[in-house]
Amino acid sequence: MSNHTLILLRHGESQWNEKNLFTGWVDVDLSAKGLTEAHRAGELLTEHNLLPNVLHTSLLRRAITTANIALDVSDRHWIPVHRTWRLNERHYGALQGKDKAQTLAEYGEAQFMLWRRSFDTPPPAIDPANEFAQTNDPRYSDLGAALPSTECLADVVDRMIPYWESNIVPDLLAGKSVLVVAHGNSLRALVKHLDSIGDSEIAELNIPTGIPLVYELDSSLKPITAGGKYLDPQAAATAAAAVANQGKR
Amino acid sequence: MSNHTLILLRHGESQWNEKNLFTGWVDVDLSAKGLTEAHRAGELLTEHNLLPNVLHTSLLRRAITTANIALDVSDRHWIPVHRTWRLNERHYGALQGKDKAQTLAEYGEAQFMLWRRSFDTPPPAIDPANEFAQTNDPRYSDLGAALPSTECLADVVDRMIPYWESNIVPDLLAGKSVLVVAHGNSLRALVKHLDSIGDSEIAELNIPTGIPLVYELDSSLKPITAGGKYLDPQAAATAAAAVANQGKR
Repeated sequence: MSNHTLILLRHGESQWNEKNLFTGWVDVDLSAKGLTEAHRAGELLTEHNLLPNVLHTSLLRRAITTANIALDVSDRHWIPVHRTWRLNERHYGALQGKDKAQTLAEYGEAQFMLWRRSFDTPPPAIDPANEFAQTNDPRYSDLGAALPSTECLADVVDRMIPYWESNIVPDLLAGKSVLVVAHGNSLRALVKHLDSIGDSEIAELNIPTGIPLVYELDSSLKPITAGGKYLDPQAAATAAAAVANQGKR
Repeated sequence: MSNHTLILLRHGESQWNEKNLFTGWVDVDLSAKGLTEAHRAGELLTEHNLLPNVLHTSLLRRAITTANIALDVSDRHWIPVHRTWRLNERHYGALQGKDKAQTLAEYGEAQFMLWRRSFDTPPPAIDPANEFAQTNDPRYSDLGAALPSTECLADVVDRMIPYWESNIVPDLLAGKSVLVVAHGNSLRALVKHLDSIGDSEIAELNIPTGIPLVYELDSSLKPITAGGKYLDPQAAATAAAAVANQGKR
């Protein structure tokens, strides 16, 4: 095993994953299934003796609760925690709160897939007065005018990588096992960076909820095995296929 | 209101509070009642609009889970968290894991109260091989020979105050509302310091589980009202009396 272990974990299913709504920065809870997934993630960490020394997570409840549960189950509830908006899900702009199937029907598959999976086309910006905007949310008060109103994946890469470099890399270089509990798109951005995936190829990559993905990194923090290793590979393959089909129900 | 708000919260009832066992550094879970108390603490914070900007807590599950629940309920799950062994419960030495009523019967009330409430008499040290010692616990590996084998309240003051000075005071001086979720004796140590309570007078002070105790502090961080203010004063008075009678069943 390398000296640099990075464990990525997408939060368990949320109440809006379950309802098939675009979520983005809307702070929804885990579903009952999501709570079970978080629990299972903790068991997988224990079974594989992959016990993190430090946690980095987002400012969103579905990631924070997933981390709290997985760490409690794996008896690592006491490790240091760092939370940052830079690990938040992609901001889905005006799509936040909208039904995925309805959006697909209304705009057609080409536009729908462009918003969901293109690297550099953001959805329309959300109106600051929209109930699903984060206009007066105190957790983002420090951002001021930098508060996003929509994001494409390229935007997520741009705001996530500085945190990776300044906060996560130093923990890895110090020999810590690092757990990152985040979101479909902030983790896709990170995997794109780690595995040097191209701007168009990243469209094909889906990360399932609740299954730890482990990267062993070499001394220059490049993956020893490209794509890392899911702790439950069969469940990961099934779940990734389901993510790819979202909206098509 | 002052610019310096400090909120103290003793964890909800633990499974060993419920069973009337000495707990100390043994890492037991909350009881069902404790989970309810943690939830209620979050509601009290919301009702009084006392929303912390930062959390300091111990390395013990009963405090961490109480904080996680109270912050989730009060919609402050995203605030920064700092965890330290210096906010742990008093180490109860060889008494850890022992029944309080049985200990009282075996040693008599004078010795029992001396161990429980004297300022400077620690219980006998725990054997490092005892199942309730923390000998190889990874969360304390940095402590080395400084790992306690028993503590009196004076020892708790000695290890807690440096953290207060170096980590909590700067947050208060920066104008943050600070939440400290800790334990009966680490909070007694802190209240002793805040209210300048004498070494013998502190014996009378009991802090109930799960009820936020709010101190508004002046510019030199002295309490504007001695003793602070419980957010549910009636429940606090009832609960404090029950703590004082532990072991006497």
